[in-house]
Amino acid sequence: MNPSAELAAFAAGLRFEHIPAAVVRKTEDLLVDWFASAVAGKGARPVESIVRFAAAMGAGEGASEVIVTRGRSSPYLAAMANAAASHFAEQDDVHNGSVFHPATVVFPAAVAAAQALGASGAQLLAAGVAGYEVGIRVGEFLGRSHYKVFHTTGTAGTLAAAAAVGNLLGLDAQQMRHAFGSAGTQSAGLWEFLRTAADSKQLHTAHAAAAGLMSAWLAKDGFTGADRILDGPQGMAAGMSSDADPARLTDGLGARWATAETSFKYHASCRHTHPAADALAHVLREYRLQPQDIARVVTHVHQGAIDVLGPVTDPVTVHQSKFSMGTVLALVARFGHAGLPEFERHFRDPDTVTLRDKVQMALDREVDAAYPRRWIGKVTVHTVDGGTLQGRVDEPKGDPGNTLNRDELTAKALQLASFSGGASDEEMRSAVERLWHVAAWPRVGRLL
Amino acid sequence: MNPSAELAAFAAGLRFEHIPAAVVRKTEDLLVDWFASAVAGKGARPVESIVRFAAAMGAGEGASEVIVTRGRSSPYLAAMANAAASHFAEQDDVHNGSVFHPATVVFPAAVAAAQALGASGAQLLAAGVAGYEVGIRVGEFLGRSHYKVFHTTGTAGTLAAAAAVGNLLGLDAQQMRHAFGSAGTQSAGLWEFLRTAADSKQLHTAHAAAAGLMSAWLAKDGFTGADRILDGPQGMAAGMSSDADPARLTDGLGARWATAETSFKYHASCRHTHPAADALAHVLREYRLQPQDIARVVTHVHQGAIDVLGPVTDPVTVHQSKFSMGTVLALVARFGHAGLPEFERHFRDPDTVTLRDKVQMALDREVDAAYPRRWIGKVTVHTVDGGTLQGRVDEPKGDPGNTLNRDELTAKALQLASFSGGASDEEMRSAVERLWHVAAWPRVGRLL
Repeated sequence: MNPSAELAAFAAGLRFEHIPAAVVRKTEDLLVDWFASAVAGKGARPVESIVRFAAAMGAGEGASEVIVTRGRSSPYLAAMANAAASHFAEQDDVHNGSVFHPATVVFPAAVAAAQALGASGAQLLAAGVAGYEVGIRVGEFLGRSHYKVFHTTGTAGTLAAAAAVGNLLGLDAQQMRHAFGSAGTQSAGLWEFLRTAADSKQLHTAHAAAAGLMSAWLAKDGFTGADRILDGPQGMAAGMSSDADPARLTDGLGARWATAETSFKYHASCRHTHPAADALAHVLREYRLQPQDIARVVTHVHQGAIDVLGPVTDPVTVHQSKFSMGTVLALVARFGHAGLPEFERHFRDPDTVTLRDKVQMALDREVDAAYPRRWIGKVTVHTVDGGTLQGRVDEPKGDPGNTLNRDELTAKALQLASFSGGASDEEMRSAVERLWHVAAWPRVGRLL
Repeated sequence: MNPSAELAAFAAGLRFEHIPAAVVRKTEDLLVDWFASAVAGKGARPVESIVRFAAAMGAGEGASEVIVTRGRSSPYLAAMANAAASHFAEQDDVHNGSVFHPATVVFPAAVAAAQALGASGAQLLAAGVAGYEVGIRVGEFLGRSHYKVFHTTGTAGTLAAAAAVGNLLGLDAQQMRHAFGSAGTQSAGLWEFLRTAADSKQLHTAHAAAAGLMSAWLAKDGFTGADRILDGPQGMAAGMSSDADPARLTDGLGARWATAETSFKYHASCRHTHPAADALAHVLREYRLQPQDIARVVTHVHQGAIDVLGPVTDPVTVHQSKFSMGTVLALVARFGHAGLPEFERHFRDPDTVTLRDKVQMALDREVDAAYPRRWIGKVTVHTVDGGTLQGRVDEPKGDPGNTLNRDELTAKALQLASFSGGASDEEMRSAVERLWHVAAWPRVGRLL
């Protein structure tokens, strides 16, 4: 079997009972965290545009939930709407090694399909794991050259969504391969939009979830796709990567659970800022420093951080400020945490701007060499009294070795819902409470 | 203005009265020819799969016509269904220089939007021209390196559809640029499916028409896209081409009408086979040869033909046989024309297979240098009695200098409808007759 076929067979054959209990628990955590991000998208202009489009082009009925409107639609259009919603707040999960955001493409498709098909909670979790395992490996396979131009969450995301929905539809291995073929040939998403702060990020996830779901649905109906869409001579890697490694596609399938390697986002900012943010928080706590004690901060970072964050020197929007290393560290210094309310209320305070301009980035060989497998945080803080303090974090908050527990995930979910107004505290608390028991649900019903 | 902006401004500003009368007539011809191809998709398995998916995910009502079911849907899902339908018979039009099939991505989106918006026939024609002019130039821009891996009709098609629908929606130049950004960042379609004769070709056009329409619709609602999706440092060319030429994007805008350069397909096969097919037909007529007189045929072709057709040595489906140079030439030798009935009934006859295996392709410097601006057909026929005959065609049948007239287009339309059973002779004749007067329609209603 070639790697595409092996990966497809795995995605088709995965069942709830094959998944270790710890991975199931983690998947429940990821589902709750995704749900909160979807609720957090309510009211965001680009999200509401896509939600309006989906409503205008669909039925206004159907078994699948549109989370931000509390309406219903077909699984295809609900997946589109919920995927747009869950990628706006920059709080959805990330897999470090693949630089891929699995939840926002996998769960919108899986939940919409599960609701339409009357699947059980256990089936939804298994489908989610199938989506994560596939999407993460495809992202790793496509490599760093791909990520330089393509938004991996959009591109690998079509296959991740197809794997999840195909698993729910009970595709056999050959049908799953066809679903991969159809998903991969719709794979898309370019970073160019970042240059002018355009809205494409949510379009990429909407597209990936919807196209992936469509691919699985078509495969169930006998529609065929390329056999080797990933590594064939005119496949995804041939067109969109120069360092693709087919061995990554099947790396530890069924033994290594990539799902469990996924990180939660603690700060509401670009993940590239998190290691330094945590290292700074550590220094401030350790030495009991106040913001006014800081003369200068040097963050020792990987090249990817400089590439993505470097251009953002004077952010003018909340969303852009999440890509400003200085702003994130200033908020952490002032409030201990850079969450949604901190950004919204304080991203351009004079105190924030003053601190922001004291932060520099410097390329660090150790940090760069460890990336993307490990995201090490290192800072040097120069104090106003002439001191020099070092801070280091080997696993930023939210990484598997330093994860968020269920209380922290619940608190984050409540904060996200309250921020967007997508659900009341009481509703959200009850929805999250129910979701902790998803593995026992006989049918996946509405989440809200 | 950069080229992306200039092209967007042209697409936004184009009005019916700007278009020369001869180009309007040609666009009417292209619309009729597209309509016939859409009718021809009825009953084809991959088409019916996509049509069923669109029906399952939508409303079953709406102002836009689904041609093969005679049902109705939203413009988004109708565009998806009709685009799948019109690219199946391999009889839809092609622009030589860009190796791009404009009709099957432009008209499904434009007609569906026009029906939903209550646009006039003149507005539909102007939108069609906007789509053709943009799509063809984007295809030319992306170049030969792109076409080696990507199906240009799928990739450039998202922008073509966005231009057409954006023109109908009355987008201003900036909104059109945003529509281009959203369309380009969804641009997708890989040739890998050909290797195993998978169904992706119709998925590519369905995807392009639907994603392009969505992009224009979102732009009207304020959704933004990258400013330089085509030629920016992380745009389409950066990710998917190594020989892109930005000058092609604006080549002769408003003076050179690329729409009028579009070719009709005479044979029901991949366009790369047509020049050789016509050259062979010429030799057979000229020297009054019979199939049994042929010992061997060498077709002297451009590299693109070898890339696309080379892998197809023993086609097992009708659709795959349309990408087999040997099969096409065998049918031409046996029947004088490789039309839908010839493929359907004879693609695997022993006589066809015997002839097929006598056909070789050889790269020809002159043909390759002229390509893609001119598609020259050259064949050498070795006869069983030891003779060697040369055949040459400088413009294959259907090219602008050797075009199909309205009687021939009508006859082709009737044949397509009768082949699929998509419409009776009488219905088709009356639908085509009405379409010749589309420029005078106050509103675009149902075509069937």
